[in-house]
Amino acid sequence: MTATAQGRPETDTRLQRLSLNTATTKYWTLQQAINGAVRAGIPALGVWRDRVAEVGTERAAQLIRDAGLRVSSLCRGGFLTAVDPAEQRKALADNRAAITEAATLGTDSLIMVVGGLPDSDRDIVGARQRVADRIADLVPYASEHGVRLVLEPLHPMYCADRAVLSTLGQALELAAPHPAESVGVVVDTFHVWWDPALAEQIARTGRENRLAAYQVCDWNLPIAADALLSRGMMGDGFIDFDTIGGWVRDTGYNGDIEVEIFNADIWAADGDEVLATMARRFVDLVLPTAQQPPNKNRSDDNPG
Amino acid sequence: MTATAQGRPETDTRLQRLSLNTATTKYWTLQQAINGAVRAGIPALGVWRDRVAEVGTERAAQLIRDAGLRVSSLCRGGFLTAVDPAEQRKALADNRAAITEAATLGTDSLIMVVGGLPDSDRDIVGARQRVADRIADLVPYASEHGVRLVLEPLHPMYCADRAVLSTLGQALELAAPHPAESVGVVVDTFHVWWDPALAEQIARTGRENRLAAYQVCDWNLPIAADALLSRGMMGDGFIDFDTIGGWVRDTGYNGDIEVEIFNADIWAADGDEVLATMARRFVDLVLPTAQQPPNKNRSDDNPG
Repeated sequence: MTATAQGRPETDTRLQRLSLNTATTKYWTLQQAINGAVRAGIPALGVWRDRVAEVGTERAAQLIRDAGLRVSSLCRGGFLTAVDPAEQRKALADNRAAITEAATLGTDSLIMVVGGLPDSDRDIVGARQRVADRIADLVPYASEHGVRLVLEPLHPMYCADRAVLSTLGQALELAAPHPAESVGVVVDTFHVWWDPALAEQIARTGRENRLAAYQVCDWNLPIAADALLSRGMMGDGFIDFDTIGGWVRDTGYNGDIEVEIFNADIWAADGDEVLATMARRFVDLVLPTAQQPPNKNRSDDNPG
Repeated sequence: MTATAQGRPETDTRLQRLSLNTATTKYWTLQQAINGAVRAGIPALGVWRDRVAEVGTERAAQLIRDAGLRVSSLCRGGFLTAVDPAEQRKALADNRAAITEAATLGTDSLIMVVGGLPDSDRDIVGARQRVADRIADLVPYASEHGVRLVLEPLHPMYCADRAVLSTLGQALELAAPHPAESVGVVVDTFHVWWDPALAEQIARTGRENRLAAYQVCDWNLPIAADALLSRGMMGDGFIDFDTIGGWVRDTGYNGDIEVEIFNADIWAADGDEVLATMARRFVDLVLPTAQQPPNKNRSDDNPG
């Protein structure tokens, strides 16, 4: 029943859009993640910068390329809410380095986690404005390097400490002043599944050509002691992947689907078993709507 | 410096809009909460149904009235997402009982926590529709009893298990089909502070005459092991009460301001000390914008 039980894993076309985000196998080195993905027949990696730093960017790019894998995204840039000008300059320099890294790795998607409220600051309106200003600072450099800044709305429970960007609608507003090829957005089911405006805003990502990445994992309860580690394997929690996946498909998105799970139990498990489960759940829960033809209820499909 | 240090607490007019929600002093009986509020010069109570059940509704109403206190709201009705028809009927019966209780207690505000996803169900769109249907079922009974159903958007981290109603905008949409005097909304800072649409949606509550209650407490980190107990005393966390309070004031809202804090440390502390801190923080952090005249930047105030 597992994906890898059906002959050589490399030939399982059902996995052709699946990407392993290296955060899912936190204790694997980059080389181990590459080898694990190859063994499991997973053709792409979403790579965190700490894994790239292990071997250096050029070498990381070569290792991934030599293994025949794609890089679906680089995680992550961002943390742009500082008030202090020196801190702002430092953040911009770090983001420019991340842009260069993404280009070297051969991905055009740099995932951006924008940052929370700076120490002792409660001015969320001001913090959001600074994010807009810093994105504007970075767009020319990203554009020169052929890299897209991919804005990630995070679950509102991370608003204070990780991202004042809390909804997909807000991400699209933040992206709006910039060309679609320079600033996109990512839909991560964990962060946005609860949003009553989700159907409408996902459709809008399609109309505005902003949907750059789709990440899947589940919402588990109870919330973990470290709230960051609350993510679950698809199927273990409350998220309706069929419905959200259908909305994503209807935008025309046909790119990689990354599985990014921060979860202490998954991190403690055997990596190959995690990837086998991940591939099986992907095929069972995520792929069905991703594979269907787009919803035919669109006006441009009406014969009348 | 405390509110109670300035003469007889009963005469401190700065506390005239402050209401103690009985959840803040969880281990106090109704009688203890009444006595504590009187000692602290707090003129109103937001009452939970378990405290009312201790003595019976008629007796609870009399005790509160005899102490010279108001009831700012009854907490709570709701939990309307059941799929099973028998469960739905049970929920409706329980909500009708809560409506009768509110009327007997002399408050027109029944706070509604709508409920999360039923067991093993992931259809959030369907759950939200059932909430809309059950609200419609309840409106005539509420209206006959002069009670307003006050819809409470809860923080999205409670979407799976407590309330599929997650934003103020969604609450206003849910209220829209019904008369404003029958269905209102509550702004609870803890639940909505992160919302990028908050300014706009609070202003809308004013235009649509839906703002029935204002509850304050802070957003603390880390999220508590029991996520329900993450609320903090105003000033201990990340919320900008000045800004949100100004938006609320500008709607014309001049009713009670309830302090409702679920927090194990606050529950373990001496109740009178909690009320003294609460009154002081209210005066320092919440009252300043609540007392100012409305923002003069409105178009109808422009001489031109």
